[in-house]
Amino acid sequence: MNKRICDYGFTVGTLPKGPLNKITDVPGVTVGHCTIDTAESKTGVTVILPCEDNPFARKLTAAAFVHNGFGKTLGIPQVEELGTLETPIALTNTLNIGKVHDAMVGYMLDRCEKEDVKCTSINPVVGECNDSILNKISVRAVEERHVLQAIEGACKDFAEGDVGAGKSTVCFGLKGGIGSASRLVTIGERTYTIGVLVQSNFGATETFTLCGNHIGPMLKEKITPSDLDRGSIMMVVGTDLPVSDRQLRRIIRRCGVGLSRTGSFMGHGSGDIMLGFTTANRIESEPQGGTQQIEIVQESLLGQAFTACAEATEEAILNSLAMAHTCTGFDGTVKYSLTDVYLNTLGK
Amino acid sequence: MNKRICDYGFTVGTLPKGPLNKITDVPGVTVGHCTIDTAESKTGVTVILPCEDNPFARKLTAAAFVHNGFGKTLGIPQVEELGTLETPIALTNTLNIGKVHDAMVGYMLDRCEKEDVKCTSINPVVGECNDSILNKISVRAVEERHVLQAIEGACKDFAEGDVGAGKSTVCFGLKGGIGSASRLVTIGERTYTIGVLVQSNFGATETFTLCGNHIGPMLKEKITPSDLDRGSIMMVVGTDLPVSDRQLRRIIRRCGVGLSRTGSFMGHGSGDIMLGFTTANRIESEPQGGTQQIEIVQESLLGQAFTACAEATEEAILNSLAMAHTCTGFDGTVKYSLTDVYLNTLGK
Amino acid sequence: MNKRICDYGFTVGTLPKGPLNKITDVPGVTVGHCTIDTAESKTGVTVILPCEDNPFARKLTAAAFVHNGFGKTLGIPQVEELGTLETPIALTNTLNIGKVHDAMVGYMLDRCEKEDVKCTSINPVVGECNDSILNKISVRAVEERHVLQAIEGACKDFAEGDVGAGKSTVCFGLKGGIGSASRLVTIGERTYTIGVLVQSNFGATETFTLCGNHIGPMLKEKITPSDLDRGSIMMVVGTDLPVSDRQLRRIIRRCGVGLSRTGSFMGHGSGDIMLGFTTANRIESEPQGGTQQIEIVQESLLGQAFTACAEATEEAILNSLAMAHTCTGFDGTVKYSLTDVYLNTLGK
Amino acid sequence: MNKRICDYGFTVGTLPKGPLNKITDVPGVTVGHCTIDTAESKTGVTVILPCEDNPFARKLTAAAFVHNGFGKTLGIPQVEELGTLETPIALTNTLNIGKVHDAMVGYMLDRCEKEDVKCTSINPVVGECNDSILNKISVRAVEERHVLQAIEGACKDFAEGDVGAGKSTVCFGLKGGIGSASRLVTIGERTYTIGVLVQSNFGATETFTLCGNHIGPMLKEKITPSDLDRGSIMMVVGTDLPVSDRQLRRIIRRCGVGLSRTGSFMGHGSGDIMLGFTTANRIESEPQGGTQQIEIVQESLLGQAFTACAEATEEAILNSLAMAHTCTGFDGTVKYSLTDVYLNTLGK
Repeated sequence: MNKRICDYGFTVGTLPKGPLNKITDVPGVTVGHCTIDTAESKTGVTVILPCEDNPFARKLTAAAFVHNGFGKTLGIPQVEELGTLETPIALTNTLNIGKVHDAMVGYMLDRCEKEDVKCTSINPVVGECNDSILNKISVRAVEERHVLQAIEGACKDFAEGDVGAGKSTVCFGLKGGIGSASRLVTIGERTYTIGVLVQSNFGATETFTLCGNHIGPMLKEKITPSDLDRGSIMMVVGTDLPVSDRQLRRIIRRCGVGLSRTGSFMGHGSGDIMLGFTTANRIESEPQGGTQQIEIVQESLLGQAFTACAEATEEAILNSLAMAHTCTGFDGTVKYSLTDVYLNTLGK
Repeated sequence: MNKRICDYGFTVGTLPKGPLNKITDVPGVTVGHCTIDTAESKTGVTVILPCEDNPFARKLTAAAFVHNGFGKTLGIPQVEELGTLETPIALTNTLNIGKVHDAMVGYMLDRCEKEDVKCTSINPVVGECNDSILNKISVRAVEERHVLQAIEGACKDFAEGDVGAGKSTVCFGLKGGIGSASRLVTIGERTYTIGVLVQSNFGATETFTLCGNHIGPMLKEKITPSDLDRGSIMMVVGTDLPVSDRQLRRIIRRCGVGLSRTGSFMGHGSGDIMLGFTTANRIESEPQGGTQQIEIVQESLLGQAFTACAEATEEAILNSLAMAHTCTGFDGTVKYSLTDVYLNTLGK
Repeated sequence: MNKRICDYGFTVGTLPKGPLNKITDVPGVTVGHCTIDTAESKTGVTVILPCEDNPFARKLTAAAFVHNGFGKTLGIPQVEELGTLETPIALTNTLNIGKVHDAMVGYMLDRCEKEDVKCTSINPVVGECNDSILNKISVRAVEERHVLQAIEGACKDFAEGDVGAGKSTVCFGLKGGIGSASRLVTIGERTYTIGVLVQSNFGATETFTLCGNHIGPMLKEKITPSDLDRGSIMMVVGTDLPVSDRQLRRIIRRCGVGLSRTGSFMGHGSGDIMLGFTTANRIESEPQGGTQQIEIVQESLLGQAFTACAEATEEAILNSLAMAHTCTGFDGTVKYSLTDVYLNTLGK
Repeated sequence: MNKRICDYGFTVGTLPKGPLNKITDVPGVTVGHCTIDTAESKTGVTVILPCEDNPFARKLTAAAFVHNGFGKTLGIPQVEELGTLETPIALTNTLNIGKVHDAMVGYMLDRCEKEDVKCTSINPVVGECNDSILNKISVRAVEERHVLQAIEGACKDFAEGDVGAGKSTVCFGLKGGIGSASRLVTIGERTYTIGVLVQSNFGATETFTLCGNHIGPMLKEKITPSDLDRGSIMMVVGTDLPVSDRQLRRIIRRCGVGLSRTGSFMGHGSGDIMLGFTTANRIESEPQGGTQQIEIVQESLLGQAFTACAEATEEAILNSLAMAHTCTGFDGTVKYSLTDVYLNTLGK
């Protein structure tokens, strides 16, 4: 059974971690996967549920930042315009986002009908990576039922590595996948959590850097390397910090700092997409008197949150690698895990 | 049979028009509809094909501008990042965009396979309006076959009004729909076309202005008015002007000028989305030597194109109204046409 | 003595106006001018003070939107990043913005020192129009003392027309200048003001439209027309609505609706810049506990504010024309006022 | 005499360097400084001249990217709108940008008059860092003559470290300043240069990382550390790659990768601004026939340029540290150089 990167003694940054060291350390947040593994189709869907109650009825303050838009993520314009998220966030493979979008519409329509929430317009947010190295992507295997299974299975202590939407992603020529981490920040006397979940599918082997150790050149000897920094990475940030959508966008932009430190150059072919939500400052649809109060952090105190976001992103990427297993693709291609080619060789 | 707005003697602006006065005056551009009309489902899909050859193999220089992002249009981040369009543009209803996206992926995969174009990643652009006043939108009636029918039926002299994605849209409390217009601009000794196609679904009746005639207040007496400027409008601009993606974005932003003149305030609930492409400056995937030439217009000559875009947008909206018929919705709601309540009362 | 456009019986839109029908209807807001009028230099500076107390100590929630960035406005990136305004807004001519910026730095340094506010970094916002048709702009006549005079003279019932930064601007081939208007909106049981101040310097004579009356073609017979829509327009929006910076940006974008209705095509050469601030939601530099509350309007109620902003912009532009006098430039060029060539010919 | 970082055996990345390993390896580019060093004022100005001929007459294709807009850089909106640069780029201290802007206007007016280029509107680009730790910034010591001296002194092999606009900047608690580096990229059979110049004024000592060596914690023992990642960094990218403004913006965004690797978290208070120009694709003001050709790189080949930009940025920052001397500020504050506290302790 694979271990997380900190279990090998690697430390990313200096801020304290949440109890699970996952995005689900943020109260109310859960994550579910559905993994598809047939001869041809090795892919899946991962869903991040930002709250237990209906996100459409009481929307979450949210933000998006497109660092490299060579990607197909759906739902971004409305998040940017209104600063809100009204559905869970789903991740899947590039060619399946339409079907997953449609499944999310169906899920929200059903849920709103059951919960007596009026709804004739829904903006699902669906991210993607291209997993065509190991998955026969043209099959488009993800169906509505897979999305519903992922939602139903959502929990706190979710799996990482080659599961769900991370089933066949490739990162630095190694097997990538889903990874997560969290950091705690203190404002005044209160402590908040910033959690990150990534779907890692980027990076040239040459440049891979593990907590400052530039081991990419050494790994190139052991595996069939990726020569180009392409693919994509989806970075989802959840927090309970009381921030405005603008402040949140400033925070999630710092995912790029953590990403850069692992060795990414944010290559041409890599859609680098940051999505964020806070469980503070839920937006009432019809507040009494037509206005509501929201709480915002003193701007000059945001620096700690920036650091937290960068650290959690770097560690989430490393966890996606450490927790993945060596996988064989639909055409026999093998992508080795960091564990098999490196981590297991450490120590005695 | 309904007539276009110019046939009633109304003139928008001063620039000359193309022969069809439609977006299809741009060489190579065709438009197709598939209209669904059952007891419950009164909706459809409209597809704008930007070129006859494969747009994925030789991408079109393109731009997007989100004036009001309260909308669900899919595919915008990649258009903004790469400045290219690689599929036809499809329009449909709000809750059907996932299925239409998936259908477009299927269409492009098939086409690329047939035409021997390598393709494992596709970015369809799918726009939408919410047609739930007349269409039972929760049924999500648009299937893959409807998308394919729309593509197959694409032609130069396409229908306007309550067809395709405009089957049930409502504009200023009147029946809206698909409308189009074009303008000619001259740079040096060459003449180019700027065409606009809209899916009109916005506007409060009170503010409707027909070529400077503020007839909204009079119309309010005759119909059940729309009190709020909500809904959405998709504005698609096609041209053969040799412009860069940045120049094209400057042009399509001026759709807002024409939109404003019809009486829109770009209300909160109205996703105002501009999409544009030029058939000049096709992008080679692997040009010899790694570079290619593109032709750009002298920046200070763009003003004429700005005017053309604004004029064509205003007239396209008016055509969407003039060409629509009075329609009865799934629950008996009637939305009258501008022709029935006003245009037919003009003249003798 | 010139009259405002409403005094001629013209009505823009339907919303009620504030008592002065100026941006200064917003409590705490004042405006001052300093006009320079020598043989060569016919220019000046206009300053909008957003509050009576020190804006650096308690910043104002603010937003900027660049509709056409062919302009030199200073200070925009920080407004966009932090969502705050920390100085008065100054307007002047294109080649004088550096000196005015430096004067604003000096003013704020002095004021902060007197008021015991720590300050080593200041972001003045300085807008501009190119007034070189009537003003010998290369002289760069605006000095620090002119800026200070404008600030000292700030008041509620400020002058409009050919004063301050509007001394030599030209609009639709007529004499433009400074104009203002306001609208009242009601949220719940409270009434708020949205005020707009413009520095008008744009527009082709041909397209000028006065409250829906397309009188541009008629005016072309009477004056030396402007053939191109170039120049620029600065649009400053002040309000006391409790909005976030994101909501405020949505509001100020609707200045473009009012601008379009006067006949602008937002031409290539016209820097169309919107700046906005709200006197609600002042930002504390060090709130107790590290967070503060702000009040935000229910998003779906913003529509009225959009309409208010569009109406006030259109009327402010018309006031800038109506209140300007016929002016003779440094080289003898004459730009006639709308009053002389049209408004005075109305009625008996 | 200080040495550059490569002279100590440190290597950043893998791409080849230009002959000077400076931004001036790009043909036509020169850089000049004027340093002010009095008891109170220890500051200056640095000017990057992008070409030998008049940049206003034949503008350069350019781009800007604001990663953290808590900064005062002037001139960005027009660069973003038109994709062009029409003046040299000047760097100075935060409170002097107005005066430097005005000096640049004067310089360009004079030059255009001499060279018979019509010019009534100029958009200087002026960047800044806050050097108030060592410089008494409120004095605003930079005058027009200093700007002109910097321009006159521009050359290929310019000084780095505590000179010009870098005279008093502080980086990671060490003495920062001006630094530069370059990389070569090959497209087809042609080789191009990407050069970067930085004004470094950011970073917490704790996080400083020198080519992967996390030496910040060790340095904290030796100096009065900076505890917060604030300040700013200006990053100017010059190249002769034939790219469009959109492609260039993609390239300069990768400055953030290099910046992240030195230990920056792009802290709240740090204005992180990227500016770029290419000497290819000069824009004609009135091309024959109203259009011109420009050459663009195959998009998928941009990856190498991304890497080059990231590598050159990282090395330019390190050079700004290595080439700076220990400096004493106006109030006696001392900021030590990396050379004195670390580099000189290396080797024998």
